[in-house]
Amino acid sequence: MNYLEEIGIAAVEASTILSQTQTVQRNKALKILSELLIENSSQIINNNKKDIVIAKKNGRSTAYLERLLLDANRIEKIANNINSIITLPDPINEIFDQFTAENGLTIEKIRIPLGVIGSIYESRPEVTIDIASLSIKSGNTCILRGGSDSINSNNILTTLCQKALKISGLPQKSVQLITNLDRAEVSQILEMDKYINLIIPRGNENLISFVKEKAKMPVITGGIGVCHIFVDEEANIEKAMNIIENAKIQKPSACNAVDTILLHKNIIDKSLPKIAAPLIEKKVQLRCDQISKKILSKANYPVVLAKESDWGKEFLSLVLAIKVVNSFDDAIKHIEKFGSGHSEAIITENQNTSDKFLKEVDSAAVYVNASTRFTDGFEFGLGAEVGISTDKLHARGPMGLKELTSYKWLIHGKGQIRH
Amino acid sequence: MNYLEEIGIAAVEASTILSQTQTVQRNKALKILSELLIENSSQIINNNKKDIVIAKKNGRSTAYLERLLLDANRIEKIANNINSIITLPDPINEIFDQFTAENGLTIEKIRIPLGVIGSIYESRPEVTIDIASLSIKSGNTCILRGGSDSINSNNILTTLCQKALKISGLPQKSVQLITNLDRAEVSQILEMDKYINLIIPRGNENLISFVKEKAKMPVITGGIGVCHIFVDEEANIEKAMNIIENAKIQKPSACNAVDTILLHKNIIDKSLPKIAAPLIEKKVQLRCDQISKKILSKANYPVVLAKESDWGKEFLSLVLAIKVVNSFDDAIKHIEKFGSGHSEAIITENQNTSDKFLKEVDSAAVYVNASTRFTDGFEFGLGAEVGISTDKLHARGPMGLKELTSYKWLIHGKGQIRH
Repeated sequence: MNYLEEIGIAAVEASTILSQTQTVQRNKALKILSELLIENSSQIINNNKKDIVIAKKNGRSTAYLERLLLDANRIEKIANNINSIITLPDPINEIFDQFTAENGLTIEKIRIPLGVIGSIYESRPEVTIDIASLSIKSGNTCILRGGSDSINSNNILTTLCQKALKISGLPQKSVQLITNLDRAEVSQILEMDKYINLIIPRGNENLISFVKEKAKMPVITGGIGVCHIFVDEEANIEKAMNIIENAKIQKPSACNAVDTILLHKNIIDKSLPKIAAPLIEKKVQLRCDQISKKILSKANYPVVLAKESDWGKEFLSLVLAIKVVNSFDDAIKHIEKFGSGHSEAIITENQNTSDKFLKEVDSAAVYVNASTRFTDGFEFGLGAEVGISTDKLHARGPMGLKELTSYKWLIHGKGQIRH
Repeated sequence: MNYLEEIGIAAVEASTILSQTQTVQRNKALKILSELLIENSSQIINNNKKDIVIAKKNGRSTAYLERLLLDANRIEKIANNINSIITLPDPINEIFDQFTAENGLTIEKIRIPLGVIGSIYESRPEVTIDIASLSIKSGNTCILRGGSDSINSNNILTTLCQKALKISGLPQKSVQLITNLDRAEVSQILEMDKYINLIIPRGNENLISFVKEKAKMPVITGGIGVCHIFVDEEANIEKAMNIIENAKIQKPSACNAVDTILLHKNIIDKSLPKIAAPLIEKKVQLRCDQISKKILSKANYPVVLAKESDWGKEFLSLVLAIKVVNSFDDAIKHIEKFGSGHSEAIITENQNTSDKFLKEVDSAAVYVNASTRFTDGFEFGLGAEVGISTDKLHARGPMGLKELTSYKWLIHGKGQIRH
């Protein structure tokens, strides 16, 4: 038996125990974990510094290093997130449907943990705690394989998880980290459908399609966000300016950052320069279609002509595509063709138009007059998230506690037989 | 473009329209379909007779022919099922979660259709109408590939579906049948993840593992039911006798029929002969472990010794395995090892014991003092079922309308940006 199989068996064994525990026990483990993170801040930061040094040597980008970083502020935020997960209702053993059939059988649907959650993710150590704490709270065990650049950070974080589990009398192996970073092992993990009930890949498109192709267990994918904001002819331009600036600039490396602005042709002259000004000032590169380029060039804005491949591209940086559309329907068609089903927004003061947008756009999160940056487990009240699903089965959008559960039907009879 | 791709494109186009329709329109189509089935009974029966003749020539078993048969009674029952689906609440556009975040955003989760449902299933024509009517009601379109022996029946049934859709002003291609029965095409269907959002294979184990292995779209599998009934030491023997007889005999070819009886050792002497008597009378072959064989042989019952491979076997016929267990925990362990996660029951008068059984058995449906035969969409109040999932993701147990839906998050803002 190789060590991955040992991890799988241990995860299933821990899951059998953890799934039968009380809320109070799982919350206790989370409370201790939150405290341990604060107590061990300096050790965590030291380990993280080692990771940062190696990542720099590996020539990683600023955005990459930014995601890898753990400082005192971030550790405090992570610890606070855990505290908010503690306050959330326990989804396990919730009876969410209940009725008595004509034959007198009482039938209940009760929520249970999925079992073992696997995740393969980027070098972003806060994800380790997000997934571990949501798993513990929902009675699931997890097998984590974080990016190789975050190994020192992940090591101490999972050690603290196991310590918290032990102190609170729960199976230590409810959280396990795969420390051998051989890439071939990722393929082996994907064959472990005997032990893993759901795998969540997070990271770039290559990783996600690799996992989707190879995994023998169910996969929920996400994280690819080609997000659109449509500025309708009845938009409040002030709102449009603020929302677009926020959606592009506040965290360009996030999947919920906006990639393409669609502008209704009837308002381009008055609105486009206003929308562009703060973006240009913040060094955003604007890739424009013919019409919008013409208008902005005339106003001496330094913009470039968009290539066909810029539509439907997730930039993850200070780049934004701009396109003028002839109508509401053209905006919808563009989103249908180029969107990834993540997050789209409309800016409009007309309620009929916004209702139509909400109805017709088939994405995980659809917004009226708000920034796409809100698509996030914490912002949506889930405490944290194990990922943002762009699939339609089982979970869509930010995945929190409920999304880590299954259910079973419980039937009480008095000797009933079927006729 | 081959004809399968044409079917795929047509299904997606129909889905875009159907997903935006009103409940009343979809119910109208179902009402008309129900009427058309009754009006065209004799034509349906004629087509079905052709199928039966061919199936007989192909040397199919009695159980197989029984599943293939459509007579006036069955057609009436199918039509009635549709009428009960009409009375069920429409899951589409249901807002099932709603809150206002601290920043003033209102966030709603709204149920939407999955899109296009594919199903590859056995020669059992009533499944065609079950899936088609649940799909129409839930705003999904479907691509159906029934067993080749049922082609004449399926042809007329889907023609009637399309007629009902047309009369009620809905896209005819919301229900499409694949009539080319070349087996290689099944593989092609499984590559159509661009068009099909979920595929549901129904039938034997080979088909299900083939689909699971090859499908590029999400799959929900089910239909394999290795079902157990545990007769606890505090069982009411009368109830045990009736329930076991019903679970084995009422429809042995069904996935929810019982396969293995586990008997607590403390009650075998008084209960085993009583339980066996009606089974032997109804020509059930009993495959017993050493102890139970000894007891029944002593009473002159014609039983055989079970082979190791009989544990965990789905018999689908008048065969039943019997095993004596030393304790409740041994019963649980046996079910864990040999069950398929479909349906298990305990017969006991002790509520602590039954509560423990409900908690510890991890199957789609867990029963106390009732027949496993109840695991069924109609019996569970879902009108009908597109399948019985033994998976844990998205849907578990009988799948009705809700199980054919996804959701999206709708967010209303007043210009909010993220800080």
